[in-house]
Amino acid sequence: MKAKVFTLIIAIGASVTAGAQTHIVQDSVMIRKMFDQALVQGESYENLRSLCKDVGNRLSGSPEAEKAITWGKEVMERLGVDTVYLQPIEVPFWQRGDREIATLTSQNDMNLDITSLGGSVATNGPLEAELIEVQGLEEMKALDESKVKGKIVFYNKPMDPRLINTFESYGGCSGQRFWGAVEAAEKGAVGVIVRSLTLLEDDDHPHTGSMAYKDGVTKIPSVAVTTSHANVLHEQLRAGEKVTVKLDINPKTNPWVKSYNVIGEIRGTVSPEKVITVGGHLDSWDVGEGAHDDGAGVVHSIEVLRIMKALDYKPKHTVRAILYMNEENGNRGGQDYARIAKEKKEFHVALFESDRGGFSPRGFSIKGNEAQVEFVRSFRGLLEEYGLHFFEPGFPGVDIYPMLNEENIVNPNMLMMGLVPDSQRYFDYHHSTDDVFENVNKRELELGCASLAAMIYLVDKHVNELP
Amino acid sequence: MKAKVFTLIIAIGASVTAGAQTHIVQDSVMIRKMFDQALVQGESYENLRSLCKDVGNRLSGSPEAEKAITWGKEVMERLGVDTVYLQPIEVPFWQRGDREIATLTSQNDMNLDITSLGGSVATNGPLEAELIEVQGLEEMKALDESKVKGKIVFYNKPMDPRLINTFESYGGCSGQRFWGAVEAAEKGAVGVIVRSLTLLEDDDHPHTGSMAYKDGVTKIPSVAVTTSHANVLHEQLRAGEKVTVKLDINPKTNPWVKSYNVIGEIRGTVSPEKVITVGGHLDSWDVGEGAHDDGAGVVHSIEVLRIMKALDYKPKHTVRAILYMNEENGNRGGQDYARIAKEKKEFHVALFESDRGGFSPRGFSIKGNEAQVEFVRSFRGLLEEYGLHFFEPGFPGVDIYPMLNEENIVNPNMLMMGLVPDSQRYFDYHHSTDDVFENVNKRELELGCASLAAMIYLVDKHVNELP
Repeated sequence: MKAKVFTLIIAIGASVTAGAQTHIVQDSVMIRKMFDQALVQGESYENLRSLCKDVGNRLSGSPEAEKAITWGKEVMERLGVDTVYLQPIEVPFWQRGDREIATLTSQNDMNLDITSLGGSVATNGPLEAELIEVQGLEEMKALDESKVKGKIVFYNKPMDPRLINTFESYGGCSGQRFWGAVEAAEKGAVGVIVRSLTLLEDDDHPHTGSMAYKDGVTKIPSVAVTTSHANVLHEQLRAGEKVTVKLDINPKTNPWVKSYNVIGEIRGTVSPEKVITVGGHLDSWDVGEGAHDDGAGVVHSIEVLRIMKALDYKPKHTVRAILYMNEENGNRGGQDYARIAKEKKEFHVALFESDRGGFSPRGFSIKGNEAQVEFVRSFRGLLEEYGLHFFEPGFPGVDIYPMLNEENIVNPNMLMMGLVPDSQRYFDYHHSTDDVFENVNKRELELGCASLAAMIYLVDKHVNELP
Repeated sequence: MKAKVFTLIIAIGASVTAGAQTHIVQDSVMIRKMFDQALVQGESYENLRSLCKDVGNRLSGSPEAEKAITWGKEVMERLGVDTVYLQPIEVPFWQRGDREIATLTSQNDMNLDITSLGGSVATNGPLEAELIEVQGLEEMKALDESKVKGKIVFYNKPMDPRLINTFESYGGCSGQRFWGAVEAAEKGAVGVIVRSLTLLEDDDHPHTGSMAYKDGVTKIPSVAVTTSHANVLHEQLRAGEKVTVKLDINPKTNPWVKSYNVIGEIRGTVSPEKVITVGGHLDSWDVGEGAHDDGAGVVHSIEVLRIMKALDYKPKHTVRAILYMNEENGNRGGQDYARIAKEKKEFHVALFESDRGGFSPRGFSIKGNEAQVEFVRSFRGLLEEYGLHFFEPGFPGVDIYPMLNEENIVNPNMLMMGLVPDSQRYFDYHHSTDDVFENVNKRELELGCASLAAMIYLVDKHVNELP
């Protein structure tokens, strides 16, 4: 320990004052304690087990989502933080049906492994039609109506394996899943099948996700097919054969229901009215266990509070953990949190989000002005030994983004950061039955907790030094 | 692509010459092509599947190790590189027995999950004795002979979870496994049980590994116990109970046998007599499939050659992939390679090793002088976008280390580097039945191949610019 602190001071150079050196030593020691807490006394892994196994998956509006709210409130209450409360919101309530059948009728009624996309309407009995394939939205838009009318459109644009950041690859394809039904229906299509958004090339898990309809455009049923079966469809179409598919799904869209964001706080000692938040989303898709998406972010956020309590660290600003509801199919949690924060004129110093899985942390994606980015980067020397090297401007997270909407702004100088874990395995599990507790590594999860705690500590302590 | 190259030039600053800028653009384009090759046309994952499933585990001297040699030679021959050959060496041949039983006789004959340590002698029938526990070698050395005589010594020092680099944690405990039998036998112990070296706290897989005997000291049988059962033993001993264990193992140490390093080369165009090597070890322990340890390093190394061939990159220096035999229990492959290289007066420019698993690459551990370390770091700007940030002096690898022995030195300015992947999961699998193909992620493996190819390309191209 001593050796390391010493090296650090040398590295910072001789120009810093003795006072600043004391700061650096204090910060170095505190950050080491935070990592020790997460790795030795950590509760994040057991919390994740409990959320995945005792609660399970938890789509907004479902009884499991209700259970998750109680779970989150109780876990934070047990920490003995200053305040734990529920923030009422309204959320959509879509329910998967008990029938999800797709049959390749042109090929001996071969079964296709599919999952309804979240928000899809039912087929109302079997729906059989000829299949046409497009590589994404642009190709769909260019098609003549005569080629689409009465058909099922098969969106088969694969994620680009060349992109190192797999979220970029996802971003390049997710449009076909979200807007695919609208574009297809505008030209008279009767259904949509989307290639699952995963980089696994021969995967047997269908990956669900959100989709949109548009007022005035017919709502057509939409499903995701496994990449393994997408490849089968592609081969048949490429051979010039007439391919027909029969879809039969019966999901249900219920009226909106009351739900909650779950919030826990440690009150600030110097500026309690100023807030630093850290959050993940409590809801998940209704398949698997929502372990990486976003059980990890939930337990990361709770663990930040636990670590501060355990170390008796009293933040200058109020540190608030937020378990957002409904990120997956509406983002009402994030939007209503931002609206209510504005109504209460709450001053947010910084907002953190974790929603990229429980993998080894690599750094932070920063939304802020130039001085703020430099401020964050000034901590690099303290954080590199923990494997954190990435401090780049970028998207901070879906749940915190509504705080940037003009009508919600209280503090125009908010700093936002998203935790950036290694992204290679994320889309292997994302929105599928394989996103389960067993696919989260304990140490990788714990390092994420400590990385967030360390950065929040540094922002809490030093943000006033920003010009 | 264009945008990225442009940004890079800007980032490098205005002080570089136009010639240097052209270099940077060329390098950036070549590195991008290498990553595309690994991620799109890559063969490393299929090669690993074949090594793990068609060959299986492959301890030195075993028929499977023989099979692996043929496998490695054929895979490299298929690449159409300039030369593929076998380098004859002699290796030890230890064989696990068909009996590996440990019984907690003081506790209703409870079964303990164990594995013989590599090199252990047999018990020659059941061996029952009282158990005493020590936390590592130091505690053992401090014990009075009277406390040890006739006992089985239980080395239970756990890996330290606070260390971020799990190899450091391993290094802090591996001594008890390697030297434990010698230290215990010197005080009259009759057997050794070692806590498995893994960070999993309640793991049901025993983790094997190498151990030593010493001339003049009685050879006593040694096994590793699962951490789960190590915890049971610890609890019983802590309660002050008399704990007795019966061991029954029948491994066999055979005479040494002939074996081979497998070598493939692309001849250099400018200085073919100067060599850059990249290697991993072909042998593995005789449990699991040796997927991360070190199937990953084997297919990483082969893929470097494949990528260069596929891109028609003609290296200035000879690029040589080496599949070393016998890293696990003797390191004869690495030692004999270094000895033969000296005999042939081969000039090695640089040696690369991959033996830390097939996880997301983070950078390189460098053995070289100050100028060489700075030389490697000068490539950081080109490699950061691929997630490579770690370029630190450190241990490069077991197989290449004998090249540094004084009697083997031809080029005192050799540069050595070990690939450094993320280390968090490595010891979950290491030396256990869980080190199988299914626990290697395709993209993580492929990124390791491309990282090695890129760094070898940069060294090949620019090493002459070193002062």
